[in-house]
Amino acid sequence: MKKITILGSTGSIGTQTLDILSREPERYQVEGLAAGSNLELVIEQAKQFKPKTVCLSTRELAEEAKLHLPPGTKVLYGNEGLIETAASTDADTVVTAIVGSRGLEATLAAIDAGKHIGLANKETLVTAGHIVMRRAAEKGVSILPIDSEHSAIFQCLNGERRTDVKRITLTASGGSFRDRTRAELEGVTVAEALNHPNWSMGAKITIDSATMANKGLEVIEAHWLFDLSYDQIDVIIHPESIIHSYVEFVDHSIIAQIGLPDMRVPIQYALTYPERRPTPTESLNLAKLSALHFREMDFDRYPCLRFAYESGRAGQSVPTVFNAANETAVARFLDGAITFLEIETVIAKVLEQHQAIDVPDVQSIAEVDAWARAAASNI
Amino acid sequence: MKKITILGSTGSIGTQTLDILSREPERYQVEGLAAGSNLELVIEQAKQFKPKTVCLSTRELAEEAKLHLPPGTKVLYGNEGLIETAASTDADTVVTAIVGSRGLEATLAAIDAGKHIGLANKETLVTAGHIVMRRAAEKGVSILPIDSEHSAIFQCLNGERRTDVKRITLTASGGSFRDRTRAELEGVTVAEALNHPNWSMGAKITIDSATMANKGLEVIEAHWLFDLSYDQIDVIIHPESIIHSYVEFVDHSIIAQIGLPDMRVPIQYALTYPERRPTPTESLNLAKLSALHFREMDFDRYPCLRFAYESGRAGQSVPTVFNAANETAVARFLDGAITFLEIETVIAKVLEQHQAIDVPDVQSIAEVDAWARAAASNI
Repeated sequence: MKKITILGSTGSIGTQTLDILSREPERYQVEGLAAGSNLELVIEQAKQFKPKTVCLSTRELAEEAKLHLPPGTKVLYGNEGLIETAASTDADTVVTAIVGSRGLEATLAAIDAGKHIGLANKETLVTAGHIVMRRAAEKGVSILPIDSEHSAIFQCLNGERRTDVKRITLTASGGSFRDRTRAELEGVTVAEALNHPNWSMGAKITIDSATMANKGLEVIEAHWLFDLSYDQIDVIIHPESIIHSYVEFVDHSIIAQIGLPDMRVPIQYALTYPERRPTPTESLNLAKLSALHFREMDFDRYPCLRFAYESGRAGQSVPTVFNAANETAVARFLDGAITFLEIETVIAKVLEQHQAIDVPDVQSIAEVDAWARAAASNI
Repeated sequence: MKKITILGSTGSIGTQTLDILSREPERYQVEGLAAGSNLELVIEQAKQFKPKTVCLSTRELAEEAKLHLPPGTKVLYGNEGLIETAASTDADTVVTAIVGSRGLEATLAAIDAGKHIGLANKETLVTAGHIVMRRAAEKGVSILPIDSEHSAIFQCLNGERRTDVKRITLTASGGSFRDRTRAELEGVTVAEALNHPNWSMGAKITIDSATMANKGLEVIEAHWLFDLSYDQIDVIIHPESIIHSYVEFVDHSIIAQIGLPDMRVPIQYALTYPERRPTPTESLNLAKLSALHFREMDFDRYPCLRFAYESGRAGQSVPTVFNAANETAVARFLDGAITFLEIETVIAKVLEQHQAIDVPDVQSIAEVDAWARAAASNI
């Protein structure tokens, strides 16, 4: 039986992970659930999956939860509670599905406790890939990607020698505005930006898809996960999101992972690897699609992706600044404080203001992160 | 250093195999070359690669060859010479690139001599898959597919558990006449049939692509190579021949092998497996293609594929009859004796006349084969 703790259980990845676990209850035991403020849902989840530990974002929510949770459930809260949930349950695998850079400390705590990581929090590697990958190697734990693109690459590398990889290509749908020119992005609304053509995802990542910042974060994540240089990581626009990503080897043979867009496939693969199990998803019939399309990435149309490559290549504190500025700018856009195109302007200006420094530990990353958020809030 | 013997060195696969070997002469030693009647080319090949053994189809050709081959070269001829070339050189791998059912005995001789097989002769498995796969398992030798579709499946299975396979799909370009209706196939010429849109191949296999008999032979070959039932083997039309074939696993994840159509990739993979090495081929840029198309296979448009599935499912002697009737019919078409559509008629009639019998050994396969050829010559 596989023992699992989920950080971010009420979000998009969290609920889909629980959906997977609910299909084969005899194979999985849920040890811990950490949620933000969706009290009603986490209580319902706890009643169904009976975790020993539940964590909420605040003390007030935790007190309220205690009145409804099964007796004997350990109830934690806040950042310390999150770290304890990550590290101190009996889970062998921790799914890190918290959006944004809050996931880092908890992920490191889980690694230090010897737990494998089902990684859906890409900011963890973007800001601290150098720390996370080294510590995972030292502890002998696996970092199993849950993002569809990274799961695709991970699957394509099965049985292959890493030295035989020539390059990888991450596919990008192009997001909600892929058929609009830059001029047509003036004045787009939050509702339009949240209307992703292929994937059902959370709000922040849906906006990141439209700006291509999401693909940029994925590029930096892939750099760390697969130990590749930025020159070995390409991005291509593929509107149908059917080819989830692919690997080209030195012999020019390409191995691609393909399927209907459904996050439950990569989520489950991270939990059953190296085995595969049936999923409650639909089988793809390529003939029914009739065609798959591709076009070159346009870095002028999507400057956030260019910022990401530049940040990744610069290294040190720069990816942290890129990520924090983007998170803040997206939050401001969702709040109606800035326009869609100003997301890019904010990121560009914060990056301009920043002088790269070494970030050897979580504390220095947190300081840079805080600086970038403050800077992004004031532009 | 890898030691290689090539049966069918002057054909399309043979010459491309030697092209691959010539790029890294320090990695390969050619031990034997068997050709048909292209004396000039095999002499040129022997001068370049210095095999210890050369085989030609007749005694006369062998005598003539001796006058031109490097001193000390052992010169053999005929079926016995072919078998000796397959089995008695120092090769660790024998590439079987002879077209048609003549390759069977030589392939079995190579297996019995403990040599790995780079299999480009698909009729070997179609007629004697039950014998070949069992004997290869007994001898502990690998059957490494060289056909692009089977190499694709083989690559997609890297690192995967065979029990996790749900189904495989072989892609078919549709051949020279893919955009014509059946009515438009009346009176097509040999030259038109030989004009394959994507692949540069020999005459017989190019005609087999146009009738889809080639895909049918591949279906039967895949059944044996990958130990799959016919219900697990699908065929889809994919005009661009860019996705070479793919595997769907039980979780609905699909792994596909992709690349520009160039046989040197699968040929080399069979020689370097499990490693990959650079090839003298072009890298694929999907964005330059802009789209990949797919359509359902139409068994009424391509009856030869239906015959192949029916023959494969019937088993015993029936695939041998399908193959021999097809070979004879194609030869008659190339000679101008029958029309393109009569290839199908001949195969259908021979299959109709045949009563399935057990074929436990090469002798009984040869008898059935001879019967089917005679029957196909007289329709």
